[in-house]
Amino acid sequence: MKKILLINGPNLNLLGTREKDIYGTETLEDIARKANAEALKHNMDLTFIQTNHEGEIIDKIHEAKGNIDVIIINPGAYTHYSIAIRDAIKAVEIPTIEIHLSNIYNREEFRKESVIAPVCVGQISGFGSNSYILAINAAALI
Amino acid sequence: MKKILLINGPNLNLLGTREKDIYGTETLEDIARKANAEALKHNMDLTFIQTNHEGEIIDKIHEAKGNIDVIIINPGAYTHYSIAIRDAIKAVEIPTIEIHLSNIYNREEFRKESVIAPVCVGQISGFGSNSYILAINAAALI
Amino acid sequence: MKKILLINGPNLNLLGTREKDIYGTETLEDIARKANAEALKHNMDLTFIQTNHEGEIIDKIHEAKGNIDVIIINPGAYTHYSIAIRDAIKAVEIPTIEIHLSNIYNREEFRKESVIAPVCVGQISGFGSNSYILAINAAALI
Amino acid sequence: MKKILLINGPNLNLLGTREKDIYGTETLEDIARKANAEALKHNMDLTFIQTNHEGEIIDKIHEAKGNIDVIIINPGAYTHYSIAIRDAIKAVEIPTIEIHLSNIYNREEFRKESVIAPVCVGQISGFGSNSYILAINAAALI
Amino acid sequence: MKKILLINGPNLNLLGTREKDIYGTETLEDIARKANAEALKHNMDLTFIQTNHEGEIIDKIHEAKGNIDVIIINPGAYTHYSIAIRDAIKAVEIPTIEIHLSNIYNREEFRKESVIAPVCVGQISGFGSNSYILAINAAALI
Amino acid sequence: MKKILLINGPNLNLLGTREKDIYGTETLEDIARKANAEALKHNMDLTFIQTNHEGEIIDKIHEAKGNIDVIIINPGAYTHYSIAIRDAIKAVEIPTIEIHLSNIYNREEFRKESVIAPVCVGQISGFGSNSYILAINAAALI
Amino acid sequence: MKKILLINGPNLNLLGTREKDIYGTETLEDIARKANAEALKHNMDLTFIQTNHEGEIIDKIHEAKGNIDVIIINPGAYTHYSIAIRDAIKAVEIPTIEIHLSNIYNREEFRKESVIAPVCVGQISGFGSNSYILAINAAALI
Amino acid sequence: MKKILLINGPNLNLLGTREKDIYGTETLEDIARKANAEALKHNMDLTFIQTNHEGEIIDKIHEAKGNIDVIIINPGAYTHYSIAIRDAIKAVEIPTIEIHLSNIYNREEFRKESVIAPVCVGQISGFGSNSYILAINAAALI
Amino acid sequence: MKKILLINGPNLNLLGTREKDIYGTETLEDIARKANAEALKHNMDLTFIQTNHEGEIIDKIHEAKGNIDVIIINPGAYTHYSIAIRDAIKAVEIPTIEIHLSNIYNREEFRKESVIAPVCVGQISGFGSNSYILAINAAALI
Amino acid sequence: MKKILLINGPNLNLLGTREKDIYGTETLEDIARKANAEALKHNMDLTFIQTNHEGEIIDKIHEAKGNIDVIIINPGAYTHYSIAIRDAIKAVEIPTIEIHLSNIYNREEFRKESVIAPVCVGQISGFGSNSYILAINAAALI
Amino acid sequence: MKKILLINGPNLNLLGTREKDIYGTETLEDIARKANAEALKHNMDLTFIQTNHEGEIIDKIHEAKGNIDVIIINPGAYTHYSIAIRDAIKAVEIPTIEIHLSNIYNREEFRKESVIAPVCVGQISGFGSNSYILAINAAALI
Amino acid sequence: MKKILLINGPNLNLLGTREKDIYGTETLEDIARKANAEALKHNMDLTFIQTNHEGEIIDKIHEAKGNIDVIIINPGAYTHYSIAIRDAIKAVEIPTIEIHLSNIYNREEFRKESVIAPVCVGQISGFGSNSYILAINAAALI
Repeated sequence: MKKILLINGPNLNLLGTREKDIYGTETLEDIARKANAEALKHNMDLTFIQTNHEGEIIDKIHEAKGNIDVIIINPGAYTHYSIAIRDAIKAVEIPTIEIHLSNIYNREEFRKESVIAPVCVGQISGFGSNSYILAINAAALI
Repeated sequence: MKKILLINGPNLNLLGTREKDIYGTETLEDIARKANAEALKHNMDLTFIQTNHEGEIIDKIHEAKGNIDVIIINPGAYTHYSIAIRDAIKAVEIPTIEIHLSNIYNREEFRKESVIAPVCVGQISGFGSNSYILAINAAALI
Repeated sequence: MKKILLINGPNLNLLGTREKDIYGTETLEDIARKANAEALKHNMDLTFIQTNHEGEIIDKIHEAKGNIDVIIINPGAYTHYSIAIRDAIKAVEIPTIEIHLSNIYNREEFRKESVIAPVCVGQISGFGSNSYILAINAAALI
Repeated sequence: MKKILLINGPNLNLLGTREKDIYGTETLEDIARKANAEALKHNMDLTFIQTNHEGEIIDKIHEAKGNIDVIIINPGAYTHYSIAIRDAIKAVEIPTIEIHLSNIYNREEFRKESVIAPVCVGQISGFGSNSYILAINAAALI
Repeated sequence: MKKILLINGPNLNLLGTREKDIYGTETLEDIARKANAEALKHNMDLTFIQTNHEGEIIDKIHEAKGNIDVIIINPGAYTHYSIAIRDAIKAVEIPTIEIHLSNIYNREEFRKESVIAPVCVGQISGFGSNSYILAINAAALI
Repeated sequence: MKKILLINGPNLNLLGTREKDIYGTETLEDIARKANAEALKHNMDLTFIQTNHEGEIIDKIHEAKGNIDVIIINPGAYTHYSIAIRDAIKAVEIPTIEIHLSNIYNREEFRKESVIAPVCVGQISGFGSNSYILAINAAALI
Repeated sequence: MKKILLINGPNLNLLGTREKDIYGTETLEDIARKANAEALKHNMDLTFIQTNHEGEIIDKIHEAKGNIDVIIINPGAYTHYSIAIRDAIKAVEIPTIEIHLSNIYNREEFRKESVIAPVCVGQISGFGSNSYILAINAAALI
Repeated sequence: MKKILLINGPNLNLLGTREKDIYGTETLEDIARKANAEALKHNMDLTFIQTNHEGEIIDKIHEAKGNIDVIIINPGAYTHYSIAIRDAIKAVEIPTIEIHLSNIYNREEFRKESVIAPVCVGQISGFGSNSYILAINAAALI
Repeated sequence: MKKILLINGPNLNLLGTREKDIYGTETLEDIARKANAEALKHNMDLTFIQTNHEGEIIDKIHEAKGNIDVIIINPGAYTHYSIAIRDAIKAVEIPTIEIHLSNIYNREEFRKESVIAPVCVGQISGFGSNSYILAINAAALI
Repeated sequence: MKKILLINGPNLNLLGTREKDIYGTETLEDIARKANAEALKHNMDLTFIQTNHEGEIIDKIHEAKGNIDVIIINPGAYTHYSIAIRDAIKAVEIPTIEIHLSNIYNREEFRKESVIAPVCVGQISGFGSNSYILAINAAALI
Repeated sequence: MKKILLINGPNLNLLGTREKDIYGTETLEDIARKANAEALKHNMDLTFIQTNHEGEIIDKIHEAKGNIDVIIINPGAYTHYSIAIRDAIKAVEIPTIEIHLSNIYNREEFRKESVIAPVCVGQISGFGSNSYILAINAAALI
Repeated sequence: MKKILLINGPNLNLLGTREKDIYGTETLEDIARKANAEALKHNMDLTFIQTNHEGEIIDKIHEAKGNIDVIIINPGAYTHYSIAIRDAIKAVEIPTIEIHLSNIYNREEFRKESVIAPVCVGQISGFGSNSYILAINAAALI
């Protein structure tokens, strides 16, 4: 049974309460439920976590080594500057999929660059909570 | 029945023969077959085309207006400079999904910028021919 | 009798149906009619064409050599990157006027640069379809 | 009766004596005469002024508020750095047309940027004194 | 009674012992005392905290939602790169005032950019510990 | 009795009539009145002036030498390019506070740089007319 | 017998009539004749084509796969932005020589960058029609 | 008898009182006296003026046309942005020498660029008030 | 007895398991042992720690104040963006040596800039685990 | 009899021993022999030199004036920064051909710029030692 | 008796034979003669040298230490990149004057930056051989 | 017995006499003595040279090939632009250590880039003459 770790970065715990025009009205709990259901369909085991701490994200990625088959990560704002998370992903050598709720390419200029993307298998952005569903599908395929 | 137009840009006709370490060994015909099968699963009608001509891509996008529900586009090299294709997508106001076989974020610097992405719903890149499958799933969801 | 070639670049065929807040509700046919009427006032012969293909625009400019006195061009998105069109204009040595419906200086940053403008006599932008009328007046004056 | 204020910025008082290969041999008085004649044709009232002082240009724009229907401005060198004039035009909310005698896009690199253009209706450049005539036509149309 | 949360970012716990020529000799405790006194004058309730951890700052901002009326933040070095803190402030939609002890505009080049400022109501910098006092006044006014 | 010179730069005379969504509905006279009242509270003498002329601002700063204890300046658009005003402030060696009505960090990119700020004591921006009140408080404190 | 495909890009059909100070007075037909003669000397078969269409250049490069031993290309203005042509050359894996009539390094700044050069064997520029002769020699040597 | 106009730009009236470590203790009157004496040695007639107003500098340069043989200008801070003064110098076609008291190349980065220098005969900087004396010598030589 | 604090930043706990071609096969424990042995040779007391948390690194640097004579730091990915760590080092005024296992100058472009280096005594990079040994030698010498 | 000076810049004496994957196994002596043979075919007199000293290259170019008809230069690393060599070539007014063994456009970014190229007739790069042969052919043609 | 060392950098030995429209027809010997005569007028001893070798310029500057009172240097092309010469001038702590025959500010963009200027007393450029005479005057004054 | 070549670049012969606050009071001879002693401790043979000539440094590196085991180089100002020295080091394939007396990362901006570093094993900077001692230790270890 394939094991998936789905990491949510900073501020994603506020989903459904925050800037609803950009991020929609679903809460992170709603998304976790949908994601779990989708993982089950593919007979995969999903661990779904959220933290605002860069260091904790790194710790979690390290712990995944040897225990997890695919990482899915929505790095939130750390997308744009956390070389430390990038290095962690590269170091553990677990295939990783980067996801975003919004289309990061039609927002502020600085959101166009992901320092994480170059060490991931691929990136899915812009489909709201469906980005999560698609990433779980992708995890099943790789 | 939802109608999908899937446009392949320049050089994608060479797939399976070209730089196999980056793009894999499947031909574009192989991918078309897989894409059609996937579309059928979602009860959608898929038109799958390829051209090396920027002007033709624009013409095809225009013709989609009123006839097509979702455009999926792999703009190939035009991703990085064809503002004309971008304007065409914006003009027809059909939801559009940008896809790439390879992860454009771990290749040459100039491949990191997509002038198309800001006018699309979302982007899926890096999953090889599975980028096509995921985009069809996404089309079904939006 | 002065001969004018008026070239419309990519996506201008969608005028009146596309982003009406920026481009207005007149169709390209409406504008062609108004432009012809204005040309007649100045006793000039107007040829009015549109194409989405960069190569065709170049071909048309080449054919103008020896047959046309003034070129008026709305290069659409090619304004910003088609050095090939620029070279064509420079090569045929026919006085050329660049026009734009919208004010390209209060839109996206990348629309501020015209690679065409340096080889034209002058530029008129921002007056909607009146940019065409003014350019025909300008053609009569030069 | 439509009221037009036509403002000439720094060094334009030297027209006809200065760099004739770029700016031609007409003096500013010649142009004022032609501009007045053109305005009369359109039954408009034209006020034609020139000053080298940035502060005075701002004062004149302020005074136009409530008294003037369209401003035409050749900002001369202030085109490239006077954010103060830009703010004045934006503040008075009078439709404004930017004009230039020469084609500012085939001269020094720094002349390619206009900080004024983004707050104007449109821009006409490169037609010598005919830029003034075309702008008066434009003023009649808007 | 208006509730204020005043957050001090990294290294501010060393105030009074660190680079006294730039930051003065008052300790953070001294400033807390002055700030509390000032808040009382305006009949406001002030919570004054300090942490070196980016994640904790984000957590504290989240907790403020629904409990706090105005946030005052001296983000220290995070001013220049923590998009995560910026997103937190934007997400909770509590009016926020950015403060700095020193004038960040006459120091190293990289200190001139604040990624936090665009999501704040305003910014007060350069008045030493008086920046805190002024911010509390500002909080009373908004 | 501390003497304050409060200088308002270009276009601020239009306050209350101009872009009210950014600058509010108070006129400069309203603000002058509030500022005077606040200065009186602190037993300070306030001179409140406005001019659109860069040269006059410099002249006024020069005249302040020996007569004025603190300068408060809202340089308007000159904030972004008047090195001459910067040099004047540096030359007279009077403590100077830069203020802005709006938050200059969430507007156009070019408004983010102040060439004036590096020679001031501090900067207060974003609090509307309260930026003036806070600056007067700051002047009382320094 | 070695087979050579010599592709001429946009505007080269105007040679001999266009900007003679830069490009000389020989027509493209003259050059084709000289090039054929030179190819014969080396016992090579030369196909000599010209088109203004980017898409056609790509099509021709694709058709060369399996039929042509060396491509010589004068990409004209496409040199500077056609990543699509670059990708075509890379994809077919036929050794390719880039040529230019003029020295592209002592003209406009933007002509200094070739997006094509990194995927070619080598580049020959500045020798007028002799650039063609030298490239045919080079083709014989590689 | 050669006629020299020596223009001093903004803040130079404060010389001798301002930043003495950079600019020395001589007043502008001291320098005027020395400059007049030096001009007399060369049998030249010197007019020595100072103004803080950009517009006035332009007016003075215009008036020089036909009356003055050589202009010497210390543009102060306008050195770095007044394209209007640059255009005035270019327009009147009087040989002009740019001078600076301090070495503008070992100060702030932005002081390294002179927009005036490209239209002057030459530049002398860094010799304190001797820059004036050397410029008068230079004026005698050209 | 000189006291040394040796701080290892993010991902260094994975040494010996991660990207062995770049970082070698020694584990962090191996290096700690070697470092301790080397410190003993120089009669110095070494504290050797690792954390993935930026905030903890800052806390540890603060605690060093008054207790530690020299800090040696391998900041890992924080090298390139943690101005907060930079400020902590500057604040505690303990001589600090920056080290790197790999030569950060022949890797990705973004690894060439260290925001930490300007506040350190010196930097040693590229010698694998010997960078640690050399830094301990350096600590003995300063 | 046409006289050719062929100058080899720094490190080219190591050819055949150095980075053979980039530069091949021929030594500079091998190339000199081939080059001499080719020159003889064209009845030209070839002087073939190498030096690592920028100053000597300049001296040799100076001595060529009046004695040499064409200079061929492989400037090695000086290609990218020696404006002094550029000025020497420009000063002696002898037609000069720049050559490179490798394709400088598919190596490090900094190798893409040649400060020498703008003052040469043309450039030949990427053909290994055949770049020398082609340049001798080119010298015969110009 | 004040001792002056006047150093001429690369290509200046060609003066009078080279690009006469920029540099005039005087040879370096002519200038040496005039410079010596001027030095004698001021009772100074002038040593006048020229070399194309960067290393020799550095050697000569070193030898000046203790023997020379003022260095005058025309660094030619080394002006724009020789940090080594810059460091030599800074190291010997002899007041140095940078001179140029031409106005380096109205030529190619790259000639606008002098890496030498920041360590010199001042700079004189644009007066042809009179730049030398003025520098000798300046040397007498400092 | 390991053979070390220690190369000192431009201006290092002035050590002990030059900018003592940055470089200390030891002369290069002092350092040579210390370095020799240290080499002996490690039973290595040290050759210690200095030259101001870029070409000589290259020659010396070439001569090292086959005779020297490790090169230690303090390239002085050539650090920042000598691609020729970089290529020499790369070509001879001898492990090379770059050293600097001062911390090049807290000085002028342009000193932060080393074009040499990417081809070296490692870099040691900021420890004064101890940088030499540490490099000799490093040479013993590699």
